[in-house]
Amino acid sequence: MNRQNKTVIDPWGSTHVADYSKLFDEFGIEPFDEKIIKRIPNPSKYMRRGIIFGHRDFQRILEAIENKQPFAVMSGLKPSNKFHIGNLLTASEIIYFQKEFGAKAFYCIADIESYADNRITYEDATDTAVDNLADMLALGLDPKNAHIWRQSEEKRVTDYAFIFGANVTTATMNAVYGEQTNFGLYMSALVQSGDIMLPQHPDFGGPKPVVVPVGLDQDPHIRLVRDLARKLSSNYGFVLPSATFHRLMRGLDGSEKMSKRNPMSYFDLSEDLDSIRSKVMNAFTGGRATVAEQKKLGGEPDKCMIQELCVFHFMDDDKKIVEAYQNCKSGALLCGEHKQEVIDLITSWVKNHRRKKEKLIDTAREILNVK
Amino acid sequence: MNRQNKTVIDPWGSTHVADYSKLFDEFGIEPFDEKIIKRIPNPSKYMRRGIIFGHRDFQRILEAIENKQPFAVMSGLKPSNKFHIGNLLTASEIIYFQKEFGAKAFYCIADIESYADNRITYEDATDTAVDNLADMLALGLDPKNAHIWRQSEEKRVTDYAFIFGANVTTATMNAVYGEQTNFGLYMSALVQSGDIMLPQHPDFGGPKPVVVPVGLDQDPHIRLVRDLARKLSSNYGFVLPSATFHRLMRGLDGSEKMSKRNPMSYFDLSEDLDSIRSKVMNAFTGGRATVAEQKKLGGEPDKCMIQELCVFHFMDDDKKIVEAYQNCKSGALLCGEHKQEVIDLITSWVKNHRRKKEKLIDTAREILNVK
Repeated sequence: MNRQNKTVIDPWGSTHVADYSKLFDEFGIEPFDEKIIKRIPNPSKYMRRGIIFGHRDFQRILEAIENKQPFAVMSGLKPSNKFHIGNLLTASEIIYFQKEFGAKAFYCIADIESYADNRITYEDATDTAVDNLADMLALGLDPKNAHIWRQSEEKRVTDYAFIFGANVTTATMNAVYGEQTNFGLYMSALVQSGDIMLPQHPDFGGPKPVVVPVGLDQDPHIRLVRDLARKLSSNYGFVLPSATFHRLMRGLDGSEKMSKRNPMSYFDLSEDLDSIRSKVMNAFTGGRATVAEQKKLGGEPDKCMIQELCVFHFMDDDKKIVEAYQNCKSGALLCGEHKQEVIDLITSWVKNHRRKKEKLIDTAREILNVK
Repeated sequence: MNRQNKTVIDPWGSTHVADYSKLFDEFGIEPFDEKIIKRIPNPSKYMRRGIIFGHRDFQRILEAIENKQPFAVMSGLKPSNKFHIGNLLTASEIIYFQKEFGAKAFYCIADIESYADNRITYEDATDTAVDNLADMLALGLDPKNAHIWRQSEEKRVTDYAFIFGANVTTATMNAVYGEQTNFGLYMSALVQSGDIMLPQHPDFGGPKPVVVPVGLDQDPHIRLVRDLARKLSSNYGFVLPSATFHRLMRGLDGSEKMSKRNPMSYFDLSEDLDSIRSKVMNAFTGGRATVAEQKKLGGEPDKCMIQELCVFHFMDDDKKIVEAYQNCKSGALLCGEHKQEVIDLITSWVKNHRRKKEKLIDTAREILNVK
């Protein structure tokens, strides 16, 4: 797990975060390293596998865990799409902190953002919101130890957005979010800051440690909300929110990232099974030009999206991943065989997920107060 | 009342709006002229005296009056100061439309703005809000035909602000409000747009004509909210809000405008009576260097703030104003005498106002739900 040393075998694909040292030195992100992982009673697979590679202020969370003090985990989803494999990681992290340590989960349906960004009205967002939430519940989110809200209906969050707006300069908004033509994107960014601070609202017991699991691309946002928390701590007693940073899964077809515009790069959890199978079957691998060559030279598992699917989601046993990695490298495991094995895993996982989800749609409607 | 013709005697001070023709031609503001005033059963003194000199879409209001259809009048106040004479005009216009034509009055306490602009917390704004509202009630606002709200508590308004933000470009916000350092000022401008559209919310009977009485300096804001109403009319059925434009009273001391930084330029309605008397006694007039000179040349009532106080607020009888204007011009009315007369008028007006207000503080607290 010496992830910074590129000469060591790396079955976890952590080489795909280009330059750790720059992140750590320049941006003040701290490494999520062995010292931290050792202090966590039962680290998640994302921690063990180095997918979570950095953090800000995670020691607050460690201390809360060690001292059995309350803390919260916060995240959310824009109700613009069906739940897809790119959403699984954050979802699993929320559920992990809730299940393992009793953290209260704060889960936001970012419908103000989906209106500003995608012109989806709150009403039109409702079905997607219910569907996404049912996915979350099927994945294991316990609604009894959670607060789940739509931005458009959570006045405490929009209240924060206006307070925050009055405490940030226009220059900062430009620096963090770039020069946006659509003014609503700036506003929904401040709503997002409100979402992150909601767990510390007096109605939820006031100031406390909060961990926000995010992709590295979200760090500017984390820095903004931490600045706001710092600035307003004397008025509101805010604790600076903590964050974990994970690398993002690449596109199934070998593209740099999953994208809605490129349907072969990802799949929805509610997609037709044949379509899922076909996308996995066509996924980018580290295979050689011919079987003979692969047997001789071995494959290149670092490039392989089948391996990546296992590392990220569909293989719980670390040993099996290392095994496949080594067998690929040695030439013993060929792509066709590996693909078939993983397709079976995924098919069975997805079927099982859907069975659970089906029964939870009504619960999701109830939670979101949808008739 | 031929206000555009500068050679005619102008006891109403309308020469103080620099260049009407530019406003009318360049900005598309329409003159609030005889043709309009003739259609109004009982025009307000501000209309009669040309203080209201322009409008946008006032014909909608005329039609509503003529056809006895419902319309609303909307305005508000930032709870950052005691109610002062600069606030009287808009207040009187709201009450006028309510009383004369049964318009529902929408009155907003702009506490999101006073936080963004003046760092007054919502809690700290409460006492001022109650006090200002009691002034409004004493002036004649009928709470039974009104909706009165604090921005921070009116979710329908902030909901609109987010919808509007997503429908405006950053370039427009810059053009309308200039390059603001404080990002919250842009946001509270959109909240203000929400305030103006609230009368058309389904909860208040949906789309209808609304008139917003404003000073000319507020026109960029009126244009913005009308653009938003136009853009969103297909979704919300919004009617473009109408506006009347009034000129602003100059500073009592002859300065170009009343300003908090210059206490001699205005007085509060709750200020010590001696202080009010002293400010009026020291007001800028059109008097000559000596009594003898004034008797010979006559005074310059166009410059005179005593005259202005009468025109704006404290003299209901138009004839008496014309009389004083002519007597000043002829040299028959000297400043000392005029001042004493007007001080007596104001003192009695203020005392009477305070007697009424005192009894309405509890009503104001009730309306704002303050314990």
